[in-house]
Amino acid sequence: MAVFDVAVWRAGKVRMLDQRALPLQEIYLEYGSAQEVAEAIRAMVVRGAPAIGCAAAFGVAVEAFRLAAQGMPASWEEALAPGMAALRESRPTAVNLVWALQRMSRLLQGLEADRVPERLLCEAEAIRQEDIESCREMGRLGADYLLVRGGQRPLTLLTHCNAGALATAGYGTALGVIRAAVDRFTQVRVYASETRPYLQGARLTAWELLRDGIETTLITDGMAGHLMQSRGVDAVVVGADRVAANGDAANKIGTYSLSVLAARHGIPFLVVCPLSTIDLATPTGAGIPIEERAAEEVTHYAGQRTAAMGVQVFNPAFDVTPAELITALVTEEGVVEGPDAAKIAGLFARRG
Amino acid sequence: MAVFDVAVWRAGKVRMLDQRALPLQEIYLEYGSAQEVAEAIRAMVVRGAPAIGCAAAFGVAVEAFRLAAQGMPASWEEALAPGMAALRESRPTAVNLVWALQRMSRLLQGLEADRVPERLLCEAEAIRQEDIESCREMGRLGADYLLVRGGQRPLTLLTHCNAGALATAGYGTALGVIRAAVDRFTQVRVYASETRPYLQGARLTAWELLRDGIETTLITDGMAGHLMQSRGVDAVVVGADRVAANGDAANKIGTYSLSVLAARHGIPFLVVCPLSTIDLATPTGAGIPIEERAAEEVTHYAGQRTAAMGVQVFNPAFDVTPAELITALVTEEGVVEGPDAAKIAGLFARRG
Repeated sequence: MAVFDVAVWRAGKVRMLDQRALPLQEIYLEYGSAQEVAEAIRAMVVRGAPAIGCAAAFGVAVEAFRLAAQGMPASWEEALAPGMAALRESRPTAVNLVWALQRMSRLLQGLEADRVPERLLCEAEAIRQEDIESCREMGRLGADYLLVRGGQRPLTLLTHCNAGALATAGYGTALGVIRAAVDRFTQVRVYASETRPYLQGARLTAWELLRDGIETTLITDGMAGHLMQSRGVDAVVVGADRVAANGDAANKIGTYSLSVLAARHGIPFLVVCPLSTIDLATPTGAGIPIEERAAEEVTHYAGQRTAAMGVQVFNPAFDVTPAELITALVTEEGVVEGPDAAKIAGLFARRG
Repeated sequence: MAVFDVAVWRAGKVRMLDQRALPLQEIYLEYGSAQEVAEAIRAMVVRGAPAIGCAAAFGVAVEAFRLAAQGMPASWEEALAPGMAALRESRPTAVNLVWALQRMSRLLQGLEADRVPERLLCEAEAIRQEDIESCREMGRLGADYLLVRGGQRPLTLLTHCNAGALATAGYGTALGVIRAAVDRFTQVRVYASETRPYLQGARLTAWELLRDGIETTLITDGMAGHLMQSRGVDAVVVGADRVAANGDAANKIGTYSLSVLAARHGIPFLVVCPLSTIDLATPTGAGIPIEERAAEEVTHYAGQRTAAMGVQVFNPAFDVTPAELITALVTEEGVVEGPDAAKIAGLFARRG
């Protein structure tokens, strides 16, 4: 499988593949402070909920090394607070960001001051490693679920946005299921919706699946209904940016439409995410903040205006799919059909 | 109201606003033969089912003048046949094209040979004039329907693609209803979906509505579901390229998805088209040919490649909304709720 440095530690810096330049250019950028990493997250150098979590963790670590180089701070909590705040505020919807920062914060408590930078780095590495393992496990569980549910057959899957290696520490959530399915089914054909306005499907999903030799066909977001009508889809497989305690799932804008279409066509709709994406503190999807981004993402491309002058723009980056439209929630702790609060609590109990 | 020369006769030529260059440039092109007009239709200089019908009619007229200048043909039917065929084959889905050509062909029968060019031109002018009048009538009927159905209130409408003055001889079908609604409601707010891949919503609908001072907000195609969830929509109003005898309606790709979302949210879904768009010879939507267009429309954006190299593309230009999801079909002969074969036959009977 193709491997990319989505967000890694390299020679004292946080190194990231600049996803804004894909697929035309493969550029790596390096960051030396939490503020810089926060700005990179905001600007979408790195995106995808689990990847943002990893990037933020490395951002805290690099900040600690930067501070230590200036002399050991009297209070690590206080010294790291501005960087942590910048990271927390870089994007509002993906809960993995908050989860990773909380995990880094908890570690700080009771740590010997001179060991802080190294221990934060080890924790960030652990977050990264666990994410890769979680993705592999979700891939295995999700592909097995599809096999048991529908039997051996040529499989046609539809995915939205990029929930792949590029959105995680590696392997991917939804695309992890697709990668695992390639080993289990006689044939796997993937339809990727281009995912306006940012074109993550066209630019990122197509790029990483083709690198792995997985047959990929691009559609525009409005074609999904016709695709289901005319060619048939065996399952829709997507990631998530935050799942509420009751199973409502925020994911890239357009996901909700796909779930409604899937329900009409009787197509299983799978949401694939690690437990770090599930926010038990948010009871339902109504409580998930939906980021709105700049109008220029919709009115321009590559600096060129395409839309009529003077038009207003509504540019929400995410939407919420209600739990009732999710056939199965695939996590590293298991697959739950018809997710609800009790079943989701059960996943956390299983982990202990 | 802003008026554009979508497809008109000017000094012996067919003159058209080049819709490919909008909204950045307003360029008019002139054509002197049926082959040239056919190529302009294929290349989408002019688009929109009723506008294509007008353009084809003028294309036949200009071809007759061109042939007459070379000497009066022995058989007009034979002389015009290649030009007619080129026009008929320029695009497959919009039935107004076939309808307009049939009307021109019928006229030929029994006509004195030396009067053919002028009579064809008059017929084309009649098609154009009738289309404008039909649009005004559809606008009035559609807006009245919304008023009677929901009462006086600030009205929020969602439209897709461009079913406006630019898609007809003037005023528009769906946008005609919106224009008429502006006179009847205290406030009308329009959401326009950008309509990938060709961006008719962003480039054309926004442009012509803003020219008329109608408040317009752009969304990407994937945002419609979230818009309905979060802000509310009073009605979805779209045009059509071909309506089957049972009410199934082919329209720009993405329309079917909107109809499924509207049904889930209990939002009225209105299809607005003249009788010339209804094809009684096609029993159901399954019989409507769906044009597939070039991959580059999806893989490139404003002339620049955006999608990963090597990706396959599925690029259907239209989809079919089943009659069961259409709340009302608005025609110049009346509005039918829950369209079916009997009610549609009734519309034609009413016209006599």
